[in-house]
Amino acid sequence: MVILDGKKVSNDIKNEIKQQVDKMKGKGEKVPHLAAVIVGNDGASLTYVGSKVRACERVGFESTMVRMSNTTSEIELLDKIEELNQNDDIDGFIIQLPLPPQINTQKVLMAVDPSKDVDGFHPENFGKMALDMSTFIPATPFGILELLDRYGVETKGKHTVVIGRSHIVGRPMSILMGRKGFPGNSTVTLTHSHTKNITQITSQADIIISALGVPNFLKAEMVKDDVIIIDVGITRVPDDSSPKGYIITGDVDFTNVSKKASYITPVPGGVGPMTIAMLLKNTLLAREQRM
Amino acid sequence: MVILDGKKVSNDIKNEIKQQVDKMKGKGEKVPHLAAVIVGNDGASLTYVGSKVRACERVGFESTMVRMSNTTSEIELLDKIEELNQNDDIDGFIIQLPLPPQINTQKVLMAVDPSKDVDGFHPENFGKMALDMSTFIPATPFGILELLDRYGVETKGKHTVVIGRSHIVGRPMSILMGRKGFPGNSTVTLTHSHTKNITQITSQADIIISALGVPNFLKAEMVKDDVIIIDVGITRVPDDSSPKGYIITGDVDFTNVSKKASYITPVPGGVGPMTIAMLLKNTLLAREQRM
Repeated sequence: MVILDGKKVSNDIKNEIKQQVDKMKGKGEKVPHLAAVIVGNDGASLTYVGSKVRACERVGFESTMVRMSNTTSEIELLDKIEELNQNDDIDGFIIQLPLPPQINTQKVLMAVDPSKDVDGFHPENFGKMALDMSTFIPATPFGILELLDRYGVETKGKHTVVIGRSHIVGRPMSILMGRKGFPGNSTVTLTHSHTKNITQITSQADIIISALGVPNFLKAEMVKDDVIIIDVGITRVPDDSSPKGYIITGDVDFTNVSKKASYITPVPGGVGPMTIAMLLKNTLLAREQRM
Repeated sequence: MVILDGKKVSNDIKNEIKQQVDKMKGKGEKVPHLAAVIVGNDGASLTYVGSKVRACERVGFESTMVRMSNTTSEIELLDKIEELNQNDDIDGFIIQLPLPPQINTQKVLMAVDPSKDVDGFHPENFGKMALDMSTFIPATPFGILELLDRYGVETKGKHTVVIGRSHIVGRPMSILMGRKGFPGNSTVTLTHSHTKNITQITSQADIIISALGVPNFLKAEMVKDDVIIIDVGITRVPDDSSPKGYIITGDVDFTNVSKKASYITPVPGGVGPMTIAMLLKNTLLAREQRM
């Protein structure tokens, strides 16, 4: 059984990006510049954006955090987005979700210039992905592809079962795993809350990508021998023995499933760390496309 | 066994559209106007565009056929598209495919204003579809949804197997059948040329949508009792006894599969006639959105 070590791979990727940025600097070129817009004071959102900014520093990117108050109107946010669209110094930017209720999230994501949409959330970029065109792939799915790629996990002709149909993980993964090329060329089944006989489906899977958010949902008796497991779940489960009072738990019963798996991602340290690395990679791509 | 009669349903839809157009006329409103651009002299393309123009006449739409020579340059076509984008009288338009080799199809489809893209081929519209936003759904997938809808075929919790991952049928159908709502909420498996054990997969399907283009590919022994069959295949098979010298054949061995099926589309007269009806429906939607 091989652990797909997202912590290690994401570090490798960051080091590679840093080397490229150092080369850019050496040639006197502009370095990539990522902006992150955060509206309100949600603790988790501030933590996420903080990690993104620190990751930028580590690889030598410029970064800008745009903080807006919780009472920001939709128009004010749209004006800010237009400013970032027009600002030639900004290569890519993200709008941290969720947004306060007075703001229409769909309208906001549609306002981001697709060429700066390093989260890959604009429908034009999502459509390009589904139509096999080059584009920004959303960071978490992109990270999963990269993990499979770096470990040389064969996906062609394999039966991939995706659990959960969210816009940011399940649906894009179901599309990406069935595209031509590598990683891809899988037969893909997308399952969700209306799926019947989930065990019958997972027990036929060569690869399972679970993005459900239900701790320890996937049990050993639901998978076959040598299955490849990608666990995207990150749920905080209360735990008095932990200093934080909770532990981060995946969708997969790791202790038992890992005994049957050929490859498996741990939680934490699997898919999670890949996400920020791929956001950096998208920002680097955005810079290169603007040269 | 119920035949999903696309000929009848498409006629019903055209009649409904005609009634709406008559109302528009009665109120002195502008009627929908569809333009079709055809480059070159491909016989099949001319036939298709001719059918679309006649369908417009039947429902009372205005239509314009733009014919361009086989030697048209990419720039000339892009200029024509920009003209149609700007022309306020045109509600929607299509570029008949395939295009001659000197023209980059992707670039051309990207140039169509998404609000006039009644074929639903622009990545922005494709992405909106995949992200559950309202948009123009490509005509053939839209026609299949409409058939399932009008016959009240339950899709929720059913296992739908899609055969073929083309951009215009297989991939969008795999997305649409798994979306929230009706028709949708299916567990969806997308199969293609790299799929192993296709019979094992089709024999578990409640609904099979075949868009492979291989005559009589799907045999009775590959499906279970009461399966629902949507046959998107249209292949010309030489046949001396036919006045045209060929017959149109689907992917499904209709004679034998229909004995096991609960619902099935015939070929011809199933999915095929729905396509033009849904193009008209998209054009009507485009007009309504521009009012």
